[in-house]
Amino acid sequence: MDIRHVIDFNDITPEQWDALCALGGEIKASPRDFERACEHKIMATLFYEPSTRTQLSFQTAMMRLGGKVMGFADPSSSSVSKGETLRDTVKIISAYSDVTVIRNPVEGAAYAASLYSRVPIINAGDGGHLHPTQTMTDMFTIQQNFGRYQGLTIGLCGDLLNGRTVHSLVRALSRYEGNTFYFISTAELKMPSYVTELLRKTNNTLYEVETLDECISRLDILYMTRIQRERFKTAEDYAKQSGIYILTAEKMKQAKSDMIILHPLPKVDEIDYDVDDDPRARYFEQAENGMYIRMALIHEVCINNSRIAMPGAYPAPSPAYCRNPRCISNHEKYLPPMIKETDGHHFCAYCDHKLKV
Amino acid sequence: MDIRHVIDFNDITPEQWDALCALGGEIKASPRDFERACEHKIMATLFYEPSTRTQLSFQTAMMRLGGKVMGFADPSSSSVSKGETLRDTVKIISAYSDVTVIRNPVEGAAYAASLYSRVPIINAGDGGHLHPTQTMTDMFTIQQNFGRYQGLTIGLCGDLLNGRTVHSLVRALSRYEGNTFYFISTAELKMPSYVTELLRKTNNTLYEVETLDECISRLDILYMTRIQRERFKTAEDYAKQSGIYILTAEKMKQAKSDMIILHPLPKVDEIDYDVDDDPRARYFEQAENGMYIRMALIHEVCINNSRIAMPGAYPAPSPAYCRNPRCISNHEKYLPPMIKETDGHHFCAYCDHKLKV
Amino acid sequence: MDIRHVIDFNDITPEQWDALCALGGEIKASPRDFERACEHKIMATLFYEPSTRTQLSFQTAMMRLGGKVMGFADPSSSSVSKGETLRDTVKIISAYSDVTVIRNPVEGAAYAASLYSRVPIINAGDGGHLHPTQTMTDMFTIQQNFGRYQGLTIGLCGDLLNGRTVHSLVRALSRYEGNTFYFISTAELKMPSYVTELLRKTNNTLYEVETLDECISRLDILYMTRIQRERFKTAEDYAKQSGIYILTAEKMKQAKSDMIILHPLPKVDEIDYDVDDDPRARYFEQAENGMYIRMALIHEVCINNSRIAMPGAYPAPSPAYCRNPRCISNHEKYLPPMIKETDGHHFCAYCDHKLKV
Repeated sequence: MDIRHVIDFNDITPEQWDALCALGGEIKASPRDFERACEHKIMATLFYEPSTRTQLSFQTAMMRLGGKVMGFADPSSSSVSKGETLRDTVKIISAYSDVTVIRNPVEGAAYAASLYSRVPIINAGDGGHLHPTQTMTDMFTIQQNFGRYQGLTIGLCGDLLNGRTVHSLVRALSRYEGNTFYFISTAELKMPSYVTELLRKTNNTLYEVETLDECISRLDILYMTRIQRERFKTAEDYAKQSGIYILTAEKMKQAKSDMIILHPLPKVDEIDYDVDDDPRARYFEQAENGMYIRMALIHEVCINNSRIAMPGAYPAPSPAYCRNPRCISNHEKYLPPMIKETDGHHFCAYCDHKLKV
Repeated sequence: MDIRHVIDFNDITPEQWDALCALGGEIKASPRDFERACEHKIMATLFYEPSTRTQLSFQTAMMRLGGKVMGFADPSSSSVSKGETLRDTVKIISAYSDVTVIRNPVEGAAYAASLYSRVPIINAGDGGHLHPTQTMTDMFTIQQNFGRYQGLTIGLCGDLLNGRTVHSLVRALSRYEGNTFYFISTAELKMPSYVTELLRKTNNTLYEVETLDECISRLDILYMTRIQRERFKTAEDYAKQSGIYILTAEKMKQAKSDMIILHPLPKVDEIDYDVDDDPRARYFEQAENGMYIRMALIHEVCINNSRIAMPGAYPAPSPAYCRNPRCISNHEKYLPPMIKETDGHHFCAYCDHKLKV
Repeated sequence: MDIRHVIDFNDITPEQWDALCALGGEIKASPRDFERACEHKIMATLFYEPSTRTQLSFQTAMMRLGGKVMGFADPSSSSVSKGETLRDTVKIISAYSDVTVIRNPVEGAAYAASLYSRVPIINAGDGGHLHPTQTMTDMFTIQQNFGRYQGLTIGLCGDLLNGRTVHSLVRALSRYEGNTFYFISTAELKMPSYVTELLRKTNNTLYEVETLDECISRLDILYMTRIQRERFKTAEDYAKQSGIYILTAEKMKQAKSDMIILHPLPKVDEIDYDVDDDPRARYFEQAENGMYIRMALIHEVCINNSRIAMPGAYPAPSPAYCRNPRCISNHEKYLPPMIKETDGHHFCAYCDHKLKV
């Protein structure tokens, strides 16, 4: 497959992804065959903000491959650096580890880390920007259940405005054709226009609706998301919106018998307790799949890429600085400005914000 | 032995306990024979409140069996759940692990967890309720020193009112006969009446005394406990009471030459420093025994029970809700009320509080 | 080599150090030959203050030897002890582990721990007192680069007053002869007189200078240190002093082509970013060497010393109490006062403060 750093799901080609999915399926079917695959390998987990769930999934994945894990887990780990640059931390840690998993609240941090690492970097979330292994988890679960990424009717429900998870999933699915999407949200929490525009350019169909009832009977996949309390100005705002999209056993009566319900978890109250017992609820299976696909990914980058040489050539510095205040290039001053070009537009290579050149 | 979840020491039959003790003794005698016993197994440690000592004992036990450990350790791990139910956390984690150790400040939490776990749950403390592996540590140490649970004279000294440890130990020993107990405390810190009543129903003898001097010369076992500063209203109250029961080298002169001193540790000043060097002081050996008996327990539940099916049948819901505000059933609203009946009385199955049906 | 506890670098004889360096070199050259060397061994890391970097280096070292790691990492681990003495903690933990690494903000804590431990204690920093594995890292890197500890010209630059690291390195090098030292600092941050006096008694040459420019062209080794913000009374004081000793590519033009730059890391701004790309910058290699020499040390103490008997004989108690308020003997009251004599002077055996007997 020749996957090196994993910063963005879409860096992986569809062919690489098929191979990775196949490996994930093999591991899921015969985990014992892989329990020594990464013996004597060490994974570093650099979590600059806490995310116990993601960290446990990565740790377990590495342990089930026979490998070992070290790292730090929480914000007080700012004591890690005593003002040290991300670059120095990555240089040191990549001399200790065979693969490094990084989570950081600043956008583009994982990409910046990959510029200085001697070992593969896996992005475990860089602010509101990317979280590719969550997308892999979702895509792998779809593959496990349907065996294809076309001809599916997919509903995404909840807070579509702020949900990094759903944006990435739509971007990932937009590489395929012949699917129908329902974006289900209130007007205030609608999918951002860059996502809908991206999808509209492809051979897929998109509907934006305001209630689950309008579309649930047509769906193959219902992807639920949490409406985060912290996104709302007042408690009343929250109560008003959060109640609208709760999935109940009653609503499930309208759904197809082979529809599957996905959710990135943790869920709070957007799915009624008794829906958990519906065989169509697949979010716990999805969480378990997250472990298997991370095993496949770690296996791939550890076995084939360990102790790779330092990256030699960076893109030439650019005169256009990124204006996104949450971009790593505005936090770590030594980073060279870097541009990538898509469809005639220029974007910051760290955080993907559009640049005016 | 066929032990599955370990919520309460008394869930284990005396026969199972004898077998577990025998295994603990084997491991203590030949630890090398077990250093690969749980290879490729993973233990999750879900510590919803910090207890470094208990966690290190469990971690070391699993490591000495060749297994691996992941989990979380502290209160900030409330970030674990972002409002997630215990049920969801347990469902996800039990897909990752082969055995799950849980510590939680809410009474009945471990039992609640066991209802939703695909792997064995070990209770590492649920509030002031139960802490079965501490009781196992104590019972195993008695077994190692005396080879029997009858014909012994046992003194329990210190804060008997608030000490979960001593309540559980008395409950465990009350399953045997022909022992003599001395409860040594001030009037304010006396053993709760439910414990003394339980013991009085059995073929054992009980004395309640106010000083060590009254009984120390008769004891085979002196079980000391810490008088916790946080239990007292004022510093003077604490100073007055804590000083009374301090064990000194002087007092030890009255004790039998083969008496043993136990203590759940950590101790503060209830035992003088120089008593540590007395060969009758066995509390450090007791702490080490805690590791061996946990190894036996983990071995037993990991090897025989891994990946058990989800529990299918719950007791029928009951109309009698538990009125204990510290009970998990009053914190996690989806939990079905559950009753167990003993001697014609009804008790909450989570926290053991008496119900009015 | 017969190394047991490692409290002070200078406890290790030059012969033992040569052997340890040779082992470190072997491990660095063929790490795969050692990946099972400490299989089934457990290292405890007792970090009473956070030091993520040091802890990760020790953890990785043990993992690369095939061993396992448990312990605690942060100040909230004061909950470890609930008022427990260091002695009790060490007694319990040394029943669980094969080697114990301890970091503690109180001077002499590692030595105190070694009095009660059944397994080797490695000092990972005891307040401003000692940090022997950092010294080992520095000495091993010099050995790897020059193959000798004589005939070298060594510059030490930055905060020489407060830098535990440079004090220890000079003490270590003072056991060899024929070297030339340049101490490069402002008057306010000069090397303490006890260090300069120690060096002046040996067959080495010492110059104290105020600028890098005066000596950089003569140096074989330039050891840079961080000027810690927290050492200064005001922000202006800090700004004034910190700027003076910044190492730039411009200054590096004056240096020899085979000079090496060392730094204990983390660095902040005392070395310009572009100096990192100079092949003479060896501080990242130095950090990596820290892992290899720790592997050698752990290997040595684990393989040869595991489960050693409790130390039986302590030095006789002394009438002279240590007056250093930061000394462990003034924090843990059960510790016997202990004296060591050097050149007719008496020193506290815990913290090395001079005693008036």
